[in-house]
Amino acid sequence: TSNHPVMDHAISFQEMIRRKRDGGQLSSEEICAFIQGVKLANIQECQIGAMLMAIWQKGMVNEETLALTKEMMMSGEVFHWPEEWAELMVDKHSTGGVGDKISLPLAPALAACGCKVPMISGHGLAHTGGTLDKLESIPGFNIHQSVEQVRQILQDVGCCIVGQTETLVPADRVLYALRDATATVDSLPLITGSIISKKGAEGLYALLLDVKFGRAALYKDLNSARTLAQSLVNAGNSLGTRTGAVLSRMDTPIGRCVGNALEVCEALECLKGRGPDDLKELVTFLGGCLLWMSHRSPSLENGQRMIAEVLTNGAALHKFQAMLEAQGVSTQIAHSLCSQTTDYFKHLRRAEYQTELQASDDGTVVDIDGMVIATVLHKLGAGRTRAGQSINHSVGVELLADLGQQIQRGQSWIRIHHDCPVLSPEQHSDLQGSLLIGGRDSYQTRARVAEFIQPPDTRLTPQDPSEPDGSTS
Amino acid sequence: TSNHPVMDHAISFQEMIRRKRDGGQLSSEEICAFIQGVKLANIQECQIGAMLMAIWQKGMVNEETLALTKEMMMSGEVFHWPEEWAELMVDKHSTGGVGDKISLPLAPALAACGCKVPMISGHGLAHTGGTLDKLESIPGFNIHQSVEQVRQILQDVGCCIVGQTETLVPADRVLYALRDATATVDSLPLITGSIISKKGAEGLYALLLDVKFGRAALYKDLNSARTLAQSLVNAGNSLGTRTGAVLSRMDTPIGRCVGNALEVCEALECLKGRGPDDLKELVTFLGGCLLWMSHRSPSLENGQRMIAEVLTNGAALHKFQAMLEAQGVSTQIAHSLCSQTTDYFKHLRRAEYQTELQASDDGTVVDIDGMVIATVLHKLGAGRTRAGQSINHSVGVELLADLGQQIQRGQSWIRIHHDCPVLSPEQHSDLQGSLLIGGRDSYQTRARVAEFIQPPDTRLTPQDPSEPDGSTS
Repeated sequence: TSNHPVMDHAISFQEMIRRKRDGGQLSSEEICAFIQGVKLANIQECQIGAMLMAIWQKGMVNEETLALTKEMMMSGEVFHWPEEWAELMVDKHSTGGVGDKISLPLAPALAACGCKVPMISGHGLAHTGGTLDKLESIPGFNIHQSVEQVRQILQDVGCCIVGQTETLVPADRVLYALRDATATVDSLPLITGSIISKKGAEGLYALLLDVKFGRAALYKDLNSARTLAQSLVNAGNSLGTRTGAVLSRMDTPIGRCVGNALEVCEALECLKGRGPDDLKELVTFLGGCLLWMSHRSPSLENGQRMIAEVLTNGAALHKFQAMLEAQGVSTQIAHSLCSQTTDYFKHLRRAEYQTELQASDDGTVVDIDGMVIATVLHKLGAGRTRAGQSINHSVGVELLADLGQQIQRGQSWIRIHHDCPVLSPEQHSDLQGSLLIGGRDSYQTRARVAEFIQPPDTRLTPQDPSEPDGSTS
Repeated sequence: TSNHPVMDHAISFQEMIRRKRDGGQLSSEEICAFIQGVKLANIQECQIGAMLMAIWQKGMVNEETLALTKEMMMSGEVFHWPEEWAELMVDKHSTGGVGDKISLPLAPALAACGCKVPMISGHGLAHTGGTLDKLESIPGFNIHQSVEQVRQILQDVGCCIVGQTETLVPADRVLYALRDATATVDSLPLITGSIISKKGAEGLYALLLDVKFGRAALYKDLNSARTLAQSLVNAGNSLGTRTGAVLSRMDTPIGRCVGNALEVCEALECLKGRGPDDLKELVTFLGGCLLWMSHRSPSLENGQRMIAEVLTNGAALHKFQAMLEAQGVSTQIAHSLCSQTTDYFKHLRRAEYQTELQASDDGTVVDIDGMVIATVLHKLGAGRTRAGQSINHSVGVELLADLGQQIQRGQSWIRIHHDCPVLSPEQHSDLQGSLLIGGRDSYQTRARVAEFIQPPDTRLTPQDPSEPDGSTS
């Protein structure tokens, strides 16, 4: 039988599918063969589809998830950095939320605190765009950077936000497209393998996962989000990256802006020491965690103060400006966008139409449904349904009222930026329905951050005796 | 979105997979789109694999199985026969067993009773060969016959046993290969769709399923076999074919011969009014059912007598000889094989070596494990592991002792026909282990046929008042 290695593979793939189908466990060797088969295309596509569905149905035990993650990471290039950067390399990954522009201020803030942030991000595949889509609304911004260019930008600036290279985790590119086609995206081991293999390949010292839960997130409740967070933390640490996770609420949009270009404006406001409180809360908390995890700060609290400081004193803004220039934005535009007073729409395209909607009642802004807003924006062109689809960077909304604020009947509460001349009656009523006005007592402030799962590394704990479990709740 | 029909399909296939993944129900329109997608290859292979696995995991409700079966049947040509044949068209399908050569005497016996039997059969994909493999051990026998040729043979002879044409149920050819690769063969709705779509396309009046249960069958116990039988009966009748099923025991080999050429010899013995009792029991019972179902006989019992009669009086043998000639066997060989006294090995190749094994004890032959024998024969070349593999028609075994018979230590009980010079020690010991010798009281005769599930057609029942439920048990 040794004369037919491919045929032998075919047999063992079928056997592997049968075992997983029946809820059995795959060995590390089998998972290695599967990932190599995916990468080299010597496993039939129908077998990949069946295996993905069997994994979706039956799950994986811890050892299998770790083997899957490791083999995916090893399917391509793994970054190696200068030795003196070893403990400086940090990154954050978010499971995605409505108005989540955290990476834009966070990466330069961390760089301003001495970290190196080789952030590899993605285009969005739902709702509104991903981090790369937001950045691509800035004229000239180039997400395509070679490993050498990334190294140079990290040397010169300290942070970059780039697209995935061809050589990084090739097995994930294949698997991700097939998971999308086969309705197997939302599988715990497959999500874990996909996220952590890519972050593992970045050669990080510390990695923080921002796992969203709530109405506008993949995971609707805290418990299921915690299960994912623990799986991610576990897999990241098994690859040798100090990995922690924050569980954060995703019911209402983050900040006041949703939509690619509008979110860039809001991120710039944050970098200028202004902008909405919840965005600032998230950036400082996540940044503080990473500074603590990478020993830049002796405690979480101190780390948060460091981040708040560089957001206020312009150091983070300076790094962002340098990053824009390093990634292809003209000095003039980068400088203009980062000036304290600027008209963002001089450089970012504004949609043809702005429509404001008015509150139909007096009262307190009790709730704004982020999922409804995202769904309408998706239909207006701000998101994509299929990979590779073009996206309208200018479409978005600005919230003109904050949660908890008093509002009067007839007062504008949302400004929609759109390129189609009129909104449909459904879009009107959906958006109006996303706003809940109630009595003063029916609104309760809730912090975005619900929980911090720290890396399972006791070396860290003694340095932060004031917060032994690292939790903010 | 109407400009991209293929992309629209892609979306709905993903939605369909998601629904089935979650245990939901697919509409007839969706199942139609899926089968068309399979046939026209405008559904991604990974999606077919994922859908097959989701169906394997979650099953299908009755309406889905019926829609699947119908759409598969309609994916290709459906035979139409001369009007005067309408109630004459009958066929039998077996789920497969060790030594199952029933089709070879059954088809000509039914033809001798006035039926038309357009039997479309398959090559085996396990153990020993399928019906086509057995017939192909006869020099000149040609399984490839066009629809026109089939019609002519049915006109002239009344029965034929042929391979599947390119035009018949093309969706099944694709799906079967993918089910094999993705370990989703043994799914009730998929088995039902595959078997009944092909039989439905034969344009039959009556169809009988021989569903095996036991150690050497896919279904180990009567209850699970009954579940399959009921699914098949249900689907067959929904397509307008009068469909019944027999549940028959498959623990020990049928008859005394296992292996392609050896089974041809035994089938010919049966057609000459000789041969083992259990083979004759099965042929007469199954044939009797079909004669009753197609109104050739007023009762099951009378139908069985009719079959026994044509096996004894040479009429079935005469039909078989005519079928051999009509399907390419020379007159001389067909005549010689069908003579009352003949040396079969003048025409069928005999394996190079015959090895006999001896009983190691005195006593009664209590059990012979058909699965063990099939597994050894598979290794010796009598079966195939992959579709299209060549097969050794001469490899097989002859049992020299019957169940319940007294045997003495040292007496030969099995003759193995093989082309490799020596059997391995494992093959020796496996075969010896398949024989159980015990006390006289430890053997109990059991009829092969356990149950008859008749078509849900009350028009038939009054004609057979003596056996209202049609059961033999």
